Amino acid sequence: MDTKMRINRLKEYMREQSISAAFVFHPDHQFYITGFKALIYSRPIVFHLHEKTAMIVPGLEETHAKEHAKVDDVLVYYEHPNAAKTETTHMQYIKQLLEKSPASSKVGVDISFIPGEILQLIQELGYQAVDIGQYIYKMRFVKDEEEIHMLEQAGKLVNLAVSRSLEKICIGTTEMEIDAAGNAALFEATATQYPDAVIDVVVMSPSGLKRSIMPHVFSNTRRIEAGDVIIHSRQVGLNGYRAELERTVIVGKPNLEQKRAFQAAIDAQQRAIDFIKPGVKLSEVDGAARQVFEKAGLDQYAIHRTGHGIGVSAHEQPFLRYDHHDVIEEGMAFSIEPGIYIPGVGGFRHSDTVLITADGCRLITDYPSDMELLLY
Amino acid sequence: MDTKMRINRLKEYMREQSISAAFVFHPDHQFYITGFKALIYSRPIVFHLHEKTAMIVPGLEETHAKEHAKVDDVLVYYEHPNAAKTETTHMQYIKQLLEKSPASSKVGVDISFIPGEILQLIQELGYQAVDIGQYIYKMRFVKDEEEIHMLEQAGKLVNLAVSRSLEKICIGTTEMEIDAAGNAALFEATATQYPDAVIDVVVMSPSGLKRSIMPHVFSNTRRIEAGDVIIHSRQVGLNGYRAELERTVIVGKPNLEQKRAFQAAIDAQQRAIDFIKPGVKLSEVDGAARQVFEKAGLDQYAIHRTGHGIGVSAHEQPFLRYDHHDVIEEGMAFSIEPGIYIPGVGGFRHSDTVLITADGCRLITDYPSDMELLLY
Repeated sequence: MDTKMRINRLKEYMREQSISAAFVFHPDHQFYITGFKALIYSRPIVFHLHEKTAMIVPGLEETHAKEHAKVDDVLVYYEHPNAAKTETTHMQYIKQLLEKSPASSKVGVDISFIPGEILQLIQELGYQAVDIGQYIYKMRFVKDEEEIHMLEQAGKLVNLAVSRSLEKICIGTTEMEIDAAGNAALFEATATQYPDAVIDVVVMSPSGLKRSIMPHVFSNTRRIEAGDVIIHSRQVGLNGYRAELERTVIVGKPNLEQKRAFQAAIDAQQRAIDFIKPGVKLSEVDGAARQVFEKAGLDQYAIHRTGHGIGVSAHEQPFLRYDHHDVIEEGMAFSIEPGIYIPGVGGFRHSDTVLITADGCRLITDYPSDMELLLY
Repeated sequence: MDTKMRINRLKEYMREQSISAAFVFHPDHQFYITGFKALIYSRPIVFHLHEKTAMIVPGLEETHAKEHAKVDDVLVYYEHPNAAKTETTHMQYIKQLLEKSPASSKVGVDISFIPGEILQLIQELGYQAVDIGQYIYKMRFVKDEEEIHMLEQAGKLVNLAVSRSLEKICIGTTEMEIDAAGNAALFEATATQYPDAVIDVVVMSPSGLKRSIMPHVFSNTRRIEAGDVIIHSRQVGLNGYRAELERTVIVGKPNLEQKRAFQAAIDAQQRAIDFIKPGVKLSEVDGAARQVFEKAGLDQYAIHRTGHGIGVSAHEQPFLRYDHHDVIEEGMAFSIEPGIYIPGVGGFRHSDTVLITADGCRLITDYPSDMELLLY
């Protein structure tokens, strides 16, 4: 990971904007800039950039951070009484680091993720907090060669896991068992192909007419019944980079309304995939998919955007939204997933991950979408 | 869930503190207060309390929130072009709701979780943002009868999952496969016992001398080797309430240093379990466990606190830390998990979940800790 170049880009932006120092809190931003991703529960981890780079970590992340964070200094706060002669909170370090910045200068923070008490501290010490989070998101928009390679690897793994999960679908099995079947295959495959790799999994399979119309619900222990519509949704991350693949499945024979909705979801997705390319606006891709739903008379059920950026985060900017008008560039990665959720009929959404090429896009996920193949 | 009583307690606190309205951002606080827990990716969800209660949600959570959130109003922001005649961002709602509060009054927020741009908005509109997050944490300290029942159910499930995961340990299996074996058993059992239940799982099994000394790392695809020390760590949440159980396992015959460290971790945990009761301080429980490590000459390796509150969050306040001096009360729930991490020897930690009773504590997790039984 070329973290050095990323830090230099960030430094250059800070120079242009007269920002004296940066504090970054979002774990995904931190990973992008330093290569280090911790499991954060209750102990804050903070990246700092002034002249040098530093990561503030709790004692129990010391070994982990020293091994993986590409920073000049790892600053450790301890919760051990004998170590308490040194710093015991991240706030002490932040205060010390802040004092290196010239009085009343601009301090860059990722404004959506900074804890309020730290924002207040910066204000109280007379500094001006300005957002650099949006700039870091923008740095992350276009993927470099190494990132594309990692996305492609994740794409292969999510293909495998989805196929194994869908094979598991039958009357009487539960949503969680459907998810688990794909996970088991995924773990086995990655253990063989990628020793010492870290896998992230986000998976859910809301089923039935009532649950499939809720786009984001955790899988539960509901058992599959005849006539169920199931949206199997899955992301797999390999060493920090993620791909997404989702398919809608019907158990048994769909009724006419379900057939129409299913086909509309397929067609809307295909239209967006055909349409997306460098130079078009984010909103135009959303519009292209929505036109298909409009023609089918189903647009009022298309309650979410057509897709989102993907890479380090599960959902990352840019978003394929009707009111986002930035222009798409080569090297961006998106989920393409127009969806409709019709009370009494079911939810219908197919998602694939695409990489924007010079003149269009290339799928990095791959699973059949034909209705006949998705009837179980 | 007696959300009504919780809202009344919060209202009373706000009256005492002359706080005109509250905005709550932490998903676990929101769940505690309203019964609604969403999967939050990139779309904010906000709880508001003024005279009425409201939940601000994105369009794709509308059905879910209306079904589960015990609030007076569900305020929906849409990302659908035709719905854009109404509100399209959470910020618009927040601004409208803020304007109901008297000018320059105190507005309560959970300061550690409020996004910086919302804190700035509150400041710009002339209100004074004050923390109510700490008070909500305090409300959550002592569990009511229903919560205790849910913790006990989660305890039984985590027992089962840990036992199935540990059975899977053998040379050549991977960390992720160890985790998956317990998950599979867990999903099967919950499907049978708790139809339509939501399960949360946090599990990791760092293995080997290098990885087991890092307390928080995701499981990876490393294969187990003879001589490995493995810390199998697991939390299971059932419908939002969690229990934690962790065991250290050695594959093959431990050396003398490992035997000593293993026994010290067991003894320190037992000492803390015997010591904890209403009336003692959080710091004293940490001290009791640390004394055992000191006697064994291993205290410099005890790099983290002895335990943490548990319930809705994976780690929640209060913490059993050397520098936290609040007094323990009946009805609190804790993980008890003193750990030592010795380079070249391994990591050793056993965690159980306890409920504080009138005169001590009661284990709600249960798995043998004897060294003989934990050699594989």
